[in-house]
Amino acid sequence: MTPITFQAFTSADVAAMDDMFRRNFINSITGFKSVALVGTADEHGNTNLAIFSQVIHVGAHPPCIGILFRPHSVTRHTLENIKSTGCFTVNHIAESFVNAAHQTSARYAGSEYVATGLTPLFSTAVKAPYVAESPLRIGLELREIKKLDVNDTELVVGEIKEIALPDGVVGPDGFTDLEKVGSITCSGLDSYHRTSRITRLSYAKPGKTPVAIA
Amino acid sequence: MTPITFQAFTSADVAAMDDMFRRNFINSITGFKSVALVGTADEHGNTNLAIFSQVIHVGAHPPCIGILFRPHSVTRHTLENIKSTGCFTVNHIAESFVNAAHQTSARYAGSEYVATGLTPLFSTAVKAPYVAESPLRIGLELREIKKLDVNDTELVVGEIKEIALPDGVVGPDGFTDLEKVGSITCSGLDSYHRTSRITRLSYAKPGKTPVAIA
Repeated sequence: MTPITFQAFTSADVAAMDDMFRRNFINSITGFKSVALVGTADEHGNTNLAIFSQVIHVGAHPPCIGILFRPHSVTRHTLENIKSTGCFTVNHIAESFVNAAHQTSARYAGSEYVATGLTPLFSTAVKAPYVAESPLRIGLELREIKKLDVNDTELVVGEIKEIALPDGVVGPDGFTDLEKVGSITCSGLDSYHRTSRITRLSYAKPGKTPVAIA
Repeated sequence: MTPITFQAFTSADVAAMDDMFRRNFINSITGFKSVALVGTADEHGNTNLAIFSQVIHVGAHPPCIGILFRPHSVTRHTLENIKSTGCFTVNHIAESFVNAAHQTSARYAGSEYVATGLTPLFSTAVKAPYVAESPLRIGLELREIKKLDVNDTELVVGEIKEIALPDGVVGPDGFTDLEKVGSITCSGLDSYHRTSRITRLSYAKPGKTPVAIA
């Protein structure tokens, strides 16, 4: 194997970067990300749909997901709706509608559902629309918002109230096979990726070599 | 195409799950995740290394990354070290050392570097060890910690002070090709995945169809 040669960037190098270059660069180097469509509605029932890659698992009990919102971005409609209705949905993206999902990030005056052709789907459990095309849909209720001092982003934490996913993807131990679901991942601001399993490894204990599990 | 049949879970279903089943399930359904090894040292220079999948891009300017820490977990050594030294490193994981990376989650009394055979690498920029085997290494200084009320997890935000990555992976617009880097993603608590690019899409504007970019 040829040895890798490395290049290094200091914080001064990063500060000197052109804004768009820096955005692409820093958004890339944090790694592959959870990407999802977040569905909301305002108090009059007007729907909104936006793509987010800052989605994070917060905890299993209570079951919670966090989304980090940038200040003053186009996606603030989503945050306003969450604050006024207390609800949102998280919808996994499949390869079949990745272009429409990406297009939700355009600055539309009206609903991104109408603009992109994605289909709103309603449930009695939450007052926010799902995406009918999505293979894994989660309905959430707002639990907490924490603003970060460093850059005024806001971490919105929701508690899971409802989950819909395809039959046959949840294993006997609860592990859910996202490749069977058809979920994709993303990197940077605009790159989308399918995955293939390398391995699933047994619970790590000192003195035991991890083994592949089914 | 055969229509997908769905199964649904209510919040009552989730609450009634066995603890381990729920952990696997909720950790899976949030989507593919950024996964990295976080390197730290205590005030005496004793090294610590732990695998984290709750890694999130916080912002590009200043360039910041967040990591969510569970309360009372084995990985608290990492958090204690960050609090006492103000530094940590984030190291991408490649397929060639995924087993060793996973094994860092075992409850070792001493350094996970020694236990797993991964190699500490030091720099003058941060007082925390990198992982020499890692193809993309980021050195950070602690900026902020926010505790979440919902479950006492702590979001630790660091500002990027240094980055090392292979030659030839950063594009002319700053986009960094993580497949060229060799970074992997994870799902659930123990599943690791390689990726393949579906597409990279142009900046979304109303009335314009997104097109694939190189």
